Amino acid sequence: MASSGFRFELMHTDTGSNARRGRLHTPRGSVELPTFMPVGTLGTVKGVDVDRLRSTGSQIVLGNTYHLALRPGADVVASLGGLHEFMGWSGPILTDSGGFQVFSLADRVKVTESGVSFRSHIDGSPLEITPERSIAIQELLGSDFAMAFDHVVALPNKREVIADATWRSVRWAERCRQAAQRNDQMLLGIVQGGLDPRLRQDCAKALVALDFQGYAIGGLSVGEPPPEMYATLEATIPALPADRPRYLMGVGRPEDLVESMARGVDMFDCVMPTRNGRNALAFTDRGTIRLRNAQHERDSSPLEADCPCPACQHSRGYLRHLFQAKEMLGPILTSIHNITYYQRLMAEARLAIESDAFDEFRRAKLAGWEA
Amino acid sequence: MASSGFRFELMHTDTGSNARRGRLHTPRGSVELPTFMPVGTLGTVKGVDVDRLRSTGSQIVLGNTYHLALRPGADVVASLGGLHEFMGWSGPILTDSGGFQVFSLADRVKVTESGVSFRSHIDGSPLEITPERSIAIQELLGSDFAMAFDHVVALPNKREVIADATWRSVRWAERCRQAAQRNDQMLLGIVQGGLDPRLRQDCAKALVALDFQGYAIGGLSVGEPPPEMYATLEATIPALPADRPRYLMGVGRPEDLVESMARGVDMFDCVMPTRNGRNALAFTDRGTIRLRNAQHERDSSPLEADCPCPACQHSRGYLRHLFQAKEMLGPILTSIHNITYYQRLMAEARLAIESDAFDEFRRAKLAGWEA
Ligand SMILES: [Zn+2]
Ligand SMILES: [Zn+2]
Repeated sequence: MASSGFRFELMHTDTGSNARRGRLHTPRGSVELPTFMPVGTLGTVKGVDVDRLRSTGSQIVLGNTYHLALRPGADVVASLGGLHEFMGWSGPILTDSGGFQVFSLADRVKVTESGVSFRSHIDGSPLEITPERSIAIQELLGSDFAMAFDHVVALPNKREVIADATWRSVRWAERCRQAAQRNDQMLLGIVQGGLDPRLRQDCAKALVALDFQGYAIGGLSVGEPPPEMYATLEATIPALPADRPRYLMGVGRPEDLVESMARGVDMFDCVMPTRNGRNALAFTDRGTIRLRNAQHERDSSPLEADCPCPACQHSRGYLRHLFQAKEMLGPILTSIHNITYYQRLMAEARLAIESDAFDEFRRAKLAGWEA
Repeated sequence: MASSGFRFELMHTDTGSNARRGRLHTPRGSVELPTFMPVGTLGTVKGVDVDRLRSTGSQIVLGNTYHLALRPGADVVASLGGLHEFMGWSGPILTDSGGFQVFSLADRVKVTESGVSFRSHIDGSPLEITPERSIAIQELLGSDFAMAFDHVVALPNKREVIADATWRSVRWAERCRQAAQRNDQMLLGIVQGGLDPRLRQDCAKALVALDFQGYAIGGLSVGEPPPEMYATLEATIPALPADRPRYLMGVGRPEDLVESMARGVDMFDCVMPTRNGRNALAFTDRGTIRLRNAQHERDSSPLEADCPCPACQHSRGYLRHLFQAKEMLGPILTSIHNITYYQRLMAEARLAIESDAFDEFRRAKLAGWEA
């Protein structure tokens, strides 16, 4: 079922690159593209309440089907009003399908043509996810964007393994398309194919024939060198229709975002801002800062002088102290700063595209990070 | 040295009890009394950033001399602008003296007339705190209210042990009085004396002779039954001057606050709202709620329907999920709710005193908590 109330608006393409300025209209408001989605695995972006999350400039949040299906259970979320009501986020939400866990929990899964049998990473209890079940869970969660259930494999890998998983992902995508019932949820297909340009293109064509409202590029940032990821984007993106949004899953570092936007990606998600934030690593325009380093002990400067986030109301010395003292506020504030950093980067990128200055923006950012 | 810029204003005493409505004017703004001070041991109220803390209605915060002296060190705090600047709290701050750790870390201390030798609870390194050193640290921290260094002992205890610690605390209080240099910091003496009414009164008289600007009642809530604590307050408070603020240290449960206000206490601090919050225990007017209980799994009601805090924007089911999933946001939100609960209780108490209805207020609260 195609969903109403969703519309992708392509506003401008940068003259010096393939970077796109767009807008994704949804029943829960519009999302300015390119966009970065913080990851709220279990119905919360770790350590960040929804008011603070809004203040970072985040417009759309990601939730994880596999994790929510185990805890608290999709039926519990549904009985508490769905994922928006549950977590108190009134803006758009995208849920992944569980396909990534086929890769990340590979030693706990068994894949057949029917679907995937997981043994829970919490208590070993069984969880069966088929394409139909993934969609059913995502419909119970009530996300605005659902992802097709796919078969993600590690890279590098044998050619046959990758091809097999890719064509299975296409068959599963078709089953997801058939299974989808809600007309207030937009379903995205996921292009697989490892680092093989031909396989990526063939997969993209097969999915485009199924006419998804948006397309994701999956199975990247799983260990391959960044240049190979960028080359794969260059091979894949021309095979996707220009009038649909493009989402690069699970990526990544700020430089990956900039390089991928330059190649035409519209949407991103990654745990990096929050995971690194919990580990005392802060992002800035001059590269990352390891807050545990002794050099910051008496440093009265903030992480970034012009950052409006609550972490930057404090000195680096205070933030360091919080981590040294194992105070929760360290991870909280640094996560908020990092998400704010990503969102400011995306806002700057959007402005750069609008003024046909993306390449200049890209060079300036890369130069700062390498300084 | 007596400090300028501080003034205790006694606005009204309840006609049906000894509860007092006052105001404590300080160079960093005034504090409405009675007041509850959240505990920010290491320069942060655990899990609660300062903006959120302000939103709970908190007007003054407590910091711990012993803990801050170890991490990050008083000189580090001073070099980062003092405790207010360090933690980003522009309102008044009270620091304790380290005397409580003589009790709570009893197996790591050696007490002499000169002072106390601690072995750090973190790495065993030595830390010497004398009355003079306690004041010097508190002056480095730059708190608005400093506490005299006292000798706290466990209860029950031998009469001689208690008397000995009490008179040592008086001698130390005099040394603190002599040592204090800053005229922008108000020093409070601490009445000790265990559960012995006569000893408490004698200690109070000796301290009053030293003319402190405020008086604390210490060494309670260390294991004795609540009625004995209340009886001790009744014996002690009449020996304190009516024109100085009275601070009951480290207390306590909501019922303890209410019973102590009825006996004339103006100031409180306790880790209970945050420590219990981290342990999934929430305070409400109908008693405490154990959020981990399975009964809350699908409970769509908030902790308290009329509570304005961010936790109460969510269902109990969501809060339970956060604790089950070990998400940081559970402790964060429940700590905020609990502090908000305490501050709302204090605000109601102040209104009740103003309208000579404290006993009615007290009975209504106690009835709700026991329901
Ligand atoms: Zn910041
Ligand atoms: Zn609340």
